[in-house]
Amino acid sequence: MSNRLQRLFPPLVWLRGYQRHTLAQDILAGCIMTVLVIPQSLAYALLAGLPPETGLYASILPLLGYTLFASSRTLAIGPVALIALMSATAVGHIVEQGLAGYGAASLGLALISGIMLFGMGAARLGFIANFISHPVISGFITGSALVIIVSQLGSLLGVETHGGNVLALLDSLISGFSDFSATTALIGAGVIVFLVVSRRFAKPLLETFKFPKPVASSLARLAPMVAVIATSALVAGFQLGANGVAVIGDLPQGLPPLAMPELNLALVEALLVPAFLISLVIFVESTSIAHRMAARRGERLDPNQELMGLGAANVTSAFAGGLAVAGGFSRSVVNDEAGAQTQMASLFTALGIGIVTVFFSSLFHFLPEATLAATIIVAVTTLVDIRGLRETWRYSRQDGMALVATLLVTLLIGITEGILVGVGLSLVLYLYRTSRPHIAIVGRIPGTEHFRNEKRYTVETDARVIIMRVDEAIYFANAQYLEDRISEVLRQRPGATDLILMCTGVNTIDASALDILDTINTRLQSAGLRFHLAEVKGPVMDRLQSTRFMANLSGRVFLSTFEGWQTLTAHPSDPGAKTNS
Amino acid sequence: MSNRLQRLFPPLVWLRGYQRHTLAQDILAGCIMTVLVIPQSLAYALLAGLPPETGLYASILPLLGYTLFASSRTLAIGPVALIALMSATAVGHIVEQGLAGYGAASLGLALISGIMLFGMGAARLGFIANFISHPVISGFITGSALVIIVSQLGSLLGVETHGGNVLALLDSLISGFSDFSATTALIGAGVIVFLVVSRRFAKPLLETFKFPKPVASSLARLAPMVAVIATSALVAGFQLGANGVAVIGDLPQGLPPLAMPELNLALVEALLVPAFLISLVIFVESTSIAHRMAARRGERLDPNQELMGLGAANVTSAFAGGLAVAGGFSRSVVNDEAGAQTQMASLFTALGIGIVTVFFSSLFHFLPEATLAATIIVAVTTLVDIRGLRETWRYSRQDGMALVATLLVTLLIGITEGILVGVGLSLVLYLYRTSRPHIAIVGRIPGTEHFRNEKRYTVETDARVIIMRVDEAIYFANAQYLEDRISEVLRQRPGATDLILMCTGVNTIDASALDILDTINTRLQSAGLRFHLAEVKGPVMDRLQSTRFMANLSGRVFLSTFEGWQTLTAHPSDPGAKTNS
Repeated sequence: MSNRLQRLFPPLVWLRGYQRHTLAQDILAGCIMTVLVIPQSLAYALLAGLPPETGLYASILPLLGYTLFASSRTLAIGPVALIALMSATAVGHIVEQGLAGYGAASLGLALISGIMLFGMGAARLGFIANFISHPVISGFITGSALVIIVSQLGSLLGVETHGGNVLALLDSLISGFSDFSATTALIGAGVIVFLVVSRRFAKPLLETFKFPKPVASSLARLAPMVAVIATSALVAGFQLGANGVAVIGDLPQGLPPLAMPELNLALVEALLVPAFLISLVIFVESTSIAHRMAARRGERLDPNQELMGLGAANVTSAFAGGLAVAGGFSRSVVNDEAGAQTQMASLFTALGIGIVTVFFSSLFHFLPEATLAATIIVAVTTLVDIRGLRETWRYSRQDGMALVATLLVTLLIGITEGILVGVGLSLVLYLYRTSRPHIAIVGRIPGTEHFRNEKRYTVETDARVIIMRVDEAIYFANAQYLEDRISEVLRQRPGATDLILMCTGVNTIDASALDILDTINTRLQSAGLRFHLAEVKGPVMDRLQSTRFMANLSGRVFLSTFEGWQTLTAHPSDPGAKTNS
Repeated sequence: MSNRLQRLFPPLVWLRGYQRHTLAQDILAGCIMTVLVIPQSLAYALLAGLPPETGLYASILPLLGYTLFASSRTLAIGPVALIALMSATAVGHIVEQGLAGYGAASLGLALISGIMLFGMGAARLGFIANFISHPVISGFITGSALVIIVSQLGSLLGVETHGGNVLALLDSLISGFSDFSATTALIGAGVIVFLVVSRRFAKPLLETFKFPKPVASSLARLAPMVAVIATSALVAGFQLGANGVAVIGDLPQGLPPLAMPELNLALVEALLVPAFLISLVIFVESTSIAHRMAARRGERLDPNQELMGLGAANVTSAFAGGLAVAGGFSRSVVNDEAGAQTQMASLFTALGIGIVTVFFSSLFHFLPEATLAATIIVAVTTLVDIRGLRETWRYSRQDGMALVATLLVTLLIGITEGILVGVGLSLVLYLYRTSRPHIAIVGRIPGTEHFRNEKRYTVETDARVIIMRVDEAIYFANAQYLEDRISEVLRQRPGATDLILMCTGVNTIDASALDILDTINTRLQSAGLRFHLAEVKGPVMDRLQSTRFMANLSGRVFLSTFEGWQTLTAHPSDPGAKTNS
């Protein structure tokens, strides 16, 4: 079996070493996951504006698609809150929710996103996830979580809401408030309290009852399922459906046939941009979780394989009548804690959900929508990261601004706009930052070969030799600034005969910067100064060789700043040399 | 007089020291400029799709507008080829050439560009010009020059052409070729030959006739005026107008009244994006010329004053019935060589052109359009920079690619698209380059305190202490790459107990990078390694203080790499230490 094939299909590797006790662990994890994942899957389908059963369909076959290419052993795939909301917003812009075309458009979105993800993986574009900065991701996730919470308030209170941002959602909530159902609100509030309390106290409580730690932890995670069963029983027993409590109702029996989503050219065109953004978010969210998992297990993650796996999962989901899927945080953590060793656990989960969907879907008839809304609200609350905002703001005003801008735009305008503004802003801020690099005049720390900023250290300087250190790659956005700063320094130090540019921080010199260095050399020359370079890095020096600039250079290139200092200040007892205080 | 006011209006400064002999020099330069600028101005108005007299109007009052704010003493303002072409393309997308609304839209474009330029200057946004890299400017100028040359072939051959790129222009040239006028083509070809020959030989010839060098140089520049007079006389004397030679014809007498351009909201909206791009190009082209002039004279240029001056010039041009203007290369060089000392020379030029426009415009009646086309072609040929392309390509494949892409898009699709693609591409390439920073494992140069790349130098290393040098700011686009590289290095060197990150090249660490450094620290710790930093720069260290990362850091922060090396390899006679070959 070729190495190439093994790299493309990682299961070929781990299946060979697969052992009986690993199997047992994976089966157990699969069973726990089945129970945990069902309420989530139903809930996120509703959040995406789709019938609840699509969430189940998206949790069966897509897991196989992902497993085929996955480099992560424990990332668990399925419908997730963020993507469900993005899907609802994108499709809602094109087709009105509840109309016949809505489902088709949603499937089309999953299909196109899947193709894009797979294509990016095949083209080895995995690095693009790095172009979205953490503050932007953090602002986007916090903002989306708040939008999701507000979007669920309606279901929680029995009021129908719609809108892609917090303002529109609250507006429709207020104007529809006459539909308020007290029973629904009571159920919802009860579930929230139950889930919050059990998250805090269930694990320690179970541990006091002598359950081993991992078992206690897994059992504690089953709280949503307990809430699902309890509230379903309540609604069925007291016939609360008549009291205005909206329930899931009848789910279709069995699985839908695999089918290509119905698409036309206009729909594809309308979906291209949202599909690209959703692909990005699917990838970024999934790999950031997978990275954390892999780090804990000392595994190696291949971003391009992850892209292909996520792509295959989404394409499969589109054919299976599901919705766009991604790696989910809570399900992955549970999968890991439940002892999953390989993606085989996912296959058992898929089998479990398949069995429930085919044989036991009628059990969910009396499940109140408010229970699912409460599940979503409690789940996404953990995504709101106020502490991260505070820390980022304190560390860097610029990063903090990018975070807050992304958050506010996501909340108040829309989630697509939020991610776009965030990405644009972090690029512009980065360029702006590098466009005014830190430039220091340095002097020698007496008795050493070290040169440091004369404003920060007591250093020896020489009026004839100016040594400037540029702490940034010199490139088109900052080369002009360097020239201006040199002119300024020369005006302040008229006695200078030599200028050394200390290049310890100069990692590249692009063509624009080369032009400007040439100009600087000419200007210095006509002012009677020689222009030297020092500590030029290997890769930079390689390129400078055989350029016009090097041919014109009036001075020399010194290996170290000290060498330049020694050469140019040949008489250190000279009155030109002095030590500052 | 306040300092602030003097800074806003530079003439307040230079007018005080203005002397009689400066006045004489400026008057002489003004006279030479008047004669030189007229053919250019007529020609570029035609290139912009406007009546020829608008070029004259754009060369009178706008000069006053610019002078008011200009920090450059010798930059000469007026219609220029690049901006005329951009204006024709932008307005042509909105209104068809020759229709009534065309002139109004063109004036609207000048007005909006002027307001934008002035606003950017007032907001001190002069630095944005630096975000366009030299290769992109070079590709754009070469591409535009070629488009201009092809666009003039029609006038040269007596065929009407239209289109915004080379393909469309050639297509219309071929399909309209039946209109070909042999007489027109002869005049055009004759002028081209005359101009090329006189550019090469006029100056040395005049010098052999004992003219002093600067006089010879200025006289040689009058060749276009000689061609204008000679071909006008030819057409008038032999009545070639009847032979199908298109001439300028009657120009309106006098100057049009100052008037606000007619604008409506729809037109303003349609003009916003092109006006922004034209503003950028006006600014970049003008300041790059002004920078060269200022460097030669040791003057200081203030980009924000230049923005305001160019803005005032364009607003004035719009009110005076002209077209969008910029600093022109050839006219600025002539102005400088003719001995202009201050912008007073521009005012005399304006006066001169004003007199010609009011009293002598009938002289241009018989001027063939082919003469003007030939003038344009010869003028813009100097902008085609093949040598620059070759040098850039040799220096950096990435910069070369940006240049070629800009050039091709400008040529084959359109000039607006060209500049947009160029700017976008240079940003993306820059990010891509910094996203895979150069990372070296370094060792000590024996007997010194210097540490260098172990692949390039003979250095002393220690199996327990890995010293990695990152040659780039660590930020969102490359932090993940650093983590991956560290994992890789650790796999290759299992004996390590300490990792020092040598930060000489690390100019910033943004919030995303801080997150990842924290992750790296945790990973190293759980693998039993300590994580140290060395040579962290002052500004970077200031920020790192009081972050969670510094609190968690398992190792230390060393002032110098040597200090870290000494501390961690306490027994240099240890078998761990070795010197590579």
